[in-house]
Amino acid sequence: MRSFLITAKWIITGWEEEAIENGALLVEEEKILDVGKAEELKNKYKNLEEVNFPDGLIFPGLVNAHSHISMSIFRGIAEDLPLLTWLRDYIFPVEAKLKKEWVYWGAKLSLIEMMRSGTTLFCDMYLFEPEVIKATKEAGLRALVGEGLFDFPSPGYGELEKGLALTEELLKAYEKDEFVKIAVSPHTLYTCSPDTVKKCLSIAEKYGAKLHIHLSESQDEVREVMSKYGKTPAEILLEMGAVNENLLAVHCVKLKEEEIEAFAEKGASVVHCPESNLKLGSGIAPVVKMLEAGVNLALGTDGPASNNDLDMFTEMRTAALLQKGLAEDPAIINARQIFKMATFSGARALGFEKLGKIAPGYKADLAVIDLSKEYLVPDYDPFSLIVYAAKSGCVSDLMVNGKFVMRNYKILTLKEEEIKDKVLEIKKEILYILGKNSSN
Amino acid sequence: MRSFLITAKWIITGWEEEAIENGALLVEEEKILDVGKAEELKNKYKNLEEVNFPDGLIFPGLVNAHSHISMSIFRGIAEDLPLLTWLRDYIFPVEAKLKKEWVYWGAKLSLIEMMRSGTTLFCDMYLFEPEVIKATKEAGLRALVGEGLFDFPSPGYGELEKGLALTEELLKAYEKDEFVKIAVSPHTLYTCSPDTVKKCLSIAEKYGAKLHIHLSESQDEVREVMSKYGKTPAEILLEMGAVNENLLAVHCVKLKEEEIEAFAEKGASVVHCPESNLKLGSGIAPVVKMLEAGVNLALGTDGPASNNDLDMFTEMRTAALLQKGLAEDPAIINARQIFKMATFSGARALGFEKLGKIAPGYKADLAVIDLSKEYLVPDYDPFSLIVYAAKSGCVSDLMVNGKFVMRNYKILTLKEEEIKDKVLEIKKEILYILGKNSSN
Repeated sequence: MRSFLITAKWIITGWEEEAIENGALLVEEEKILDVGKAEELKNKYKNLEEVNFPDGLIFPGLVNAHSHISMSIFRGIAEDLPLLTWLRDYIFPVEAKLKKEWVYWGAKLSLIEMMRSGTTLFCDMYLFEPEVIKATKEAGLRALVGEGLFDFPSPGYGELEKGLALTEELLKAYEKDEFVKIAVSPHTLYTCSPDTVKKCLSIAEKYGAKLHIHLSESQDEVREVMSKYGKTPAEILLEMGAVNENLLAVHCVKLKEEEIEAFAEKGASVVHCPESNLKLGSGIAPVVKMLEAGVNLALGTDGPASNNDLDMFTEMRTAALLQKGLAEDPAIINARQIFKMATFSGARALGFEKLGKIAPGYKADLAVIDLSKEYLVPDYDPFSLIVYAAKSGCVSDLMVNGKFVMRNYKILTLKEEEIKDKVLEIKKEILYILGKNSSN
Repeated sequence: MRSFLITAKWIITGWEEEAIENGALLVEEEKILDVGKAEELKNKYKNLEEVNFPDGLIFPGLVNAHSHISMSIFRGIAEDLPLLTWLRDYIFPVEAKLKKEWVYWGAKLSLIEMMRSGTTLFCDMYLFEPEVIKATKEAGLRALVGEGLFDFPSPGYGELEKGLALTEELLKAYEKDEFVKIAVSPHTLYTCSPDTVKKCLSIAEKYGAKLHIHLSESQDEVREVMSKYGKTPAEILLEMGAVNENLLAVHCVKLKEEEIEAFAEKGASVVHCPESNLKLGSGIAPVVKMLEAGVNLALGTDGPASNNDLDMFTEMRTAALLQKGLAEDPAIINARQIFKMATFSGARALGFEKLGKIAPGYKADLAVIDLSKEYLVPDYDPFSLIVYAAKSGCVSDLMVNGKFVMRNYKILTLKEEEIKDKVLEIKKEILYILGKNSSN
């Protein structure tokens, strides 16, 4: 059995424990067997291969609980516009001609970014999801993915029935997969009727799968759904029995107090995407209230077309800062609560077991931050460094399931140059569709 | 005369112009002589030395209009606490024993961070400012600096009179300096009486210098000043005639509408520090109102103990996102307005001429972003990349006054390893003062 010790200047084992200075952990195959002070572990386990990070801070891999990763091909395509102008004049015309190859290369570009910012598990909803699965498998990361389902025909699968069939097919194919799980993913309650969401719910129940849906993202959404059905989006889900431990409700910016209570009571998970909510002008989610009520709250970047990145470090920072500023109270939320959202709570929300901590019996999914970066000096408090100072580019090494997928800044599983070149080619095609020419 | 062409995939010349794809600029000594399409400039100026950035985005160096850069030695020392606990239990006990060497090494650490995030000009208010000047000169950056002045004795200079004398001495010494200018820097209206601020104002007027002060940062500040003097901090400044083109008022989170109008009319500059305002629980400044009123609005990170970084890219992003989210309107502020704050308006606020644009006659102070970073692919829109996607670590080259101070990621003017080692030594001393031991 392949086992080895990893030592580091600091190890964060989980949100509720003190970080270990001069720590070590023992990895055997895909699992963590032990963790503690380096000196102790070296005495306990002799003659083991060692991997040493004298300037490193090890922590459980981050969980990006909501994204549309392939939308990196649209990053920066149009900015500072009202949502409908952005969608109608830019995103929809191009998505109507979406190619599965674009989804594949966009996913690979985003996988590089996620690896370089310490993410080992993510959740994705988009079109041509088998391409995202393929890319994720190549990269060696974990994901919960689901084909986005709408009442209108999709550029990915055509009519809704075909989308539901594709979802079931994927659910069967990945039932026992350790890396990829499938969610049933109705887009929203303004693009799917309650009947469609009910159909999705019965498929999810049949397979014990997650139901992944955008919910109460903006006042406009709530208003539209209210005027159509006389109920809020959350009320519709509550009525059909969709609010339970398998619900993954994204955004929830406009959730009412009694809806928050119901979500907490029924064990539903909410994914908070603060940067996207700000940038699209949706508002600021009631994070403190949700945490106080006991909602399992995860954190996500949303897609790189609206964020514009997949950096979970800066997402944690924004999440913390925003609540402090809004409440005018620097103590209202702390770094550990935010870190829990981005690790343990995220893994739970996505239905992955034994992830989100560095502890015996947990999977060896972890990242190493390079503390020699000038913006991470000095190192008084590892939690402060991770939540308030780290950013994409400070991760030197990444391990998933006991295997390094990035080592000393080199991604071992993907060809970075080829991916960037492909996406720049796709940019030209997209500009052509939009009637714009690039001199490149 | 030393002159050369610099070419790049993109050049952003200023906030109000279209970015140039495949552009070039001509530098002679410390100045920009010409800028345009690379093809045209190569035809116009033959046989010149060339520096090429085929994957580069060139833009005017960023201006960090407010900081306490040496406080990097306190980065992460204590988090998520009420402001007074943080100050009384951590910052004040250590600052009481502050050494000028700490200020020097902390400044150097921060200078590295600023260079790696595209900042060429910054503003500083702290203790032992001659040390900050020394470090800035070594680094080769530009700065407006001022010794922080208080009614109570300072660990830097002792009694207030000595602080005023030091300020005058520095004003004389740097009167004609191209890189370093001196501001008169009363700390606030709750640590300085109106009489003290008046004294500062007459010194500033005597030398035509900037008056740099924290103003209306929080509701607590306004309440305290109101209860002492029956007026808001801004009203006190207005009454004494301090609100004019030489005023640099920092924060202004709680400025009233009529105060905003007066600041705009009198040409005062305000420095917005959104991340610090959020993290310390001060609130969210009325940025849109200030811009609409015509206030010269600059952007700053504030000190790295409360931010926790000096990254002007992420500060721009937070500034934009926050206003969009607060107003629930994605179009309420745009990338170019934010970019102007971080360049041209910042230079104007700090009293530096011919900075903040890449245009004939302007100083050659510029930064180069490496577009091969995965989070900067693809490149539809350079303004979007800079404001919404860039972050510390993506700057490969930095030029100040026509000279490279960083080249291909290597800082040419400072010794990075030595600086980080020194700050880790200082960390140990600080932990000792706080009665905490580190095993390192």
